[in-house]
Formats: sequence, C-alpha cells, structure tokens
Amino acid sequence: MRIPKAIQNLIESFERLPGVGPKTAQRLTFYLLHVPQFELDKFAQALTSLKKDTVLCSTCFTIGEENPCDICANEKRDHSIVCVVEQPLDVLALEKNGKYNGVYHVLHGKIDPLNNIGPDEIYLRQLFDRVKNSKISEIIIATNPTMEGEATAMYINKQLKSQPFDSAQGKNSKCKVTRIGRGLPVGSDIEYADEVTLQRAMEGRSEY
Amino acid sequence: MRIPKAIQNLIESFERLPGVGPKTAQRLTFYLLHVPQFELDKFAQALTSLKKDTVLCSTCFTIGEENPCDICANEKRDHSIVCVVEQPLDVLALEKNGKYNGVYHVLHGKIDPLNNIGPDEIYLRQLFDRVKNSKISEIIIATNPTMEGEATAMYINKQLKSQPFDSAQGKNSKCKVTRIGRGLPVGSDIEYADEVTLQRAMEGRSEY
Repeated sequence: MRIPKAIQNLIESFERLPGVGPKTAQRLTFYLLHVPQFELDKFAQALTSLKKDTVLCSTCFTIGEENPCDICANEKRDHSIVCVVEQPLDVLALEKNGKYNGVYHVLHGKIDPLNNIGPDEIYLRQLFDRVKNSKISEIIIATNPTMEGEATAMYINKQLKSQPFDSAQGKNSKCKVTRIGRGLPVGSDIEYADEVTLQRAMEGRSEY
Repeated sequence: MRIPKAIQNLIESFERLPGVGPKTAQRLTFYLLHVPQFELDKFAQALTSLKKDTVLCSTCFTIGEENPCDICANEKRDHSIVCVVEQPLDVLALEKNGKYNGVYHVLHGKIDPLNNIGPDEIYLRQLFDRVKNSKISEIIIATNPTMEGEATAMYINKQLKSQPFDSAQGKNSKCKVTRIGRGLPVGSDIEYADEVTLQRAMEGRSEY
C-alpha cells in the first residue's frame, strides 16, 4: 500500500525536527488526521508567520517582536550588567524568576570545534564591540556548564581581559567578568552528584 | 520578557500534540527559527492539505488518496479474507512485508469503556454489515494484544458468531474468525518475557 502523498509529506516534515524519528513522525501525523481542520490551519499559520513576525534585537540578539527588544528598550533595567547566554531560550529561563535586572547578550551557539563552529560563527564579535562601545561594568557569562560552554566562557574571558580598552574615555577600564555559579542544583542529592559537580560546588562555596 | 506572539502560537500548537510537553514544544519552536522560510512553508502546506488530500475508503475505512483505496481496488487481492485492525498505521505495518494478500478493515479505535468508547464509536457496525453483505471466508482479528484490544477482539468474535447469517444465500454461513498469533516476538528472550506472553506462546505452539 502506498502512503498517501499528503500524509507522506507531513511525516517527512516532522522527521526533520530534532528528536523526532520516523515512528514518532508517523504517530503525530496520524494523530493530526483526527484534529479539526481549523486547528491544522492555525498550526500552519503559526509556522509560516514564525520567522516573519519575529526579529533579532540588534543590541542583544535575542528574538523579539520589535527591535530593540523589550528588555533592551526597558530603561528601568541596568544596562551596565550584561548576561551572556547561548540561546534565546536561556533568556526566557533566566527571566522566569524576574530577579535579574540587567540585560542580555545571546550568542546563538557556542564554540564547538568538532561541529566546525568557531568564534566567528556566533555573535561574539558583536559582544566585544558592545563592551568596547558602551559603559558596561559587569559581564556575567552564563553559557551552559558543558565542555563547549566552558570553553566559550574561557574564550570570552580571555578576549575581554586582553581587549585594548580605551581607558582615556573611561570606558570599561574595569569591566568585571564573572561566571554563573556552578554547584549542586536545588533539590538534588550529594550522594548522586558527579565528581566534577561536587568539585565545582566545593570551589564555589560561600560564607554564611 | 514577553515571548513574541508568533513564537507563543507555535509553542501552543506543538504542545497540543501527543507526547509533546512545554519544554519540547519550546525546543522545537526555537529550532524552527533557524530553518529556512521555504521549509516552514512546506511544513505548513503539508499540514493544511493533510485532511483535504486524503479520504476514508468507504469499504475498509483506511486512509487513502482515493475511494476505494488501492488495496480494496486491487483485484489481485483476496477479498474474502478481511484483517481487522485498530488504526491505519497497523495497515502500513502489516503491508510492509507484503506477504498478506487479503484486504483490511480499520476500526479507528478499540472498545475502551474507561475512555467512553463503546462499540458504536468505532467502525464495528460497518464491519458486521460488510460480513453480512459480501462473501467473506475469514476474519482475522488483528487488534493489539492489550486489554482493550483483546476485549474488542472478543466482542467481534461474539457478534460474528451470533449474527443471523442468511444461509439461504450461501453468504458467510461458514465465516471463520481467527485471532492474530500471540507469543514471543522474533529476537526476544524467554528469560525476560512476561508470564502472560509465555502462556500465550505455549498455547499458540505449532507442530514442526
């Protein structure tokens, strides 16, 4: 039996998504056959307008509806503290508790030589330019605590420290570079923590 | 930070899919932001035309491009053997090896009282009508070997056995009802098989 072309097309579209295999793609497609047409149209509409209705903020490179994004446009936030993250989703995660009052810089990736992603493939140059051209007192590097995330963090730190700051203009002569705290996540168990996490937790201990 | 409406819409559409939670929906949506627009348009097109370009076969109720479907329209197949399955995907699975030469009947569900699905909610009446009105020598019940699948199989068997066949017309006076074989799947391990499967395998043993 031939699979109808309309079904095959949708299966193929689903299969292209990360983490969706042929079986899942089939299951999702056959599920959608039982969904009302207006829901399908809404889904389709959301897909086509996804990129048309969003823009990259030219300051922090997060994805928003306007440029500048609402974080960069917010005058109540502290524009001298910049938190560097890998992905726009990381901004959402950090914004969820609403405690952080600085601004962001989204790299859209990490330095990953095995996948041919070097410093020039992500928004690093723009970060250094931003540090050079505006008053920034602290850079918080919040890349993921993975091998590539740590490498990216180290690279940023090295570059920022060696950057020839124009101290005559008084800009960023004392820009602090910090790394987001690594240790035991809340609710976890020391017994099951891996050695590296435990080591980081010991190194990052704080006084009561 | 507000999530842009275009992104929020797509996340919500993904969340409605079975097995896709809020995190996966976010991940898929942000992945699609890096996909070229024509791929998104293709995906959207596949979604809108999914139901428009497919029809339910009025004989076997599988989903195809035409009515009757290419299995029911194929004169080389044995139309006196009908394999009853729960879903259109089951037809694809059974067709994959190409050994079965009969036709199908898709129930589009199973009797599942806990979810308020009784015999009238699935294509059972149509199956009984089909048995009554056409020459069928064997019904192979290939519902899943789950609790609901077995209950559906038992219900079908009982109904078919009690159906007042018009033996004057010679129709289906001897319609055989069989159940697909249950036992150990190929490549499995007796050691790890559950008791019910082992019992079924013993019951369903065959002579060399």
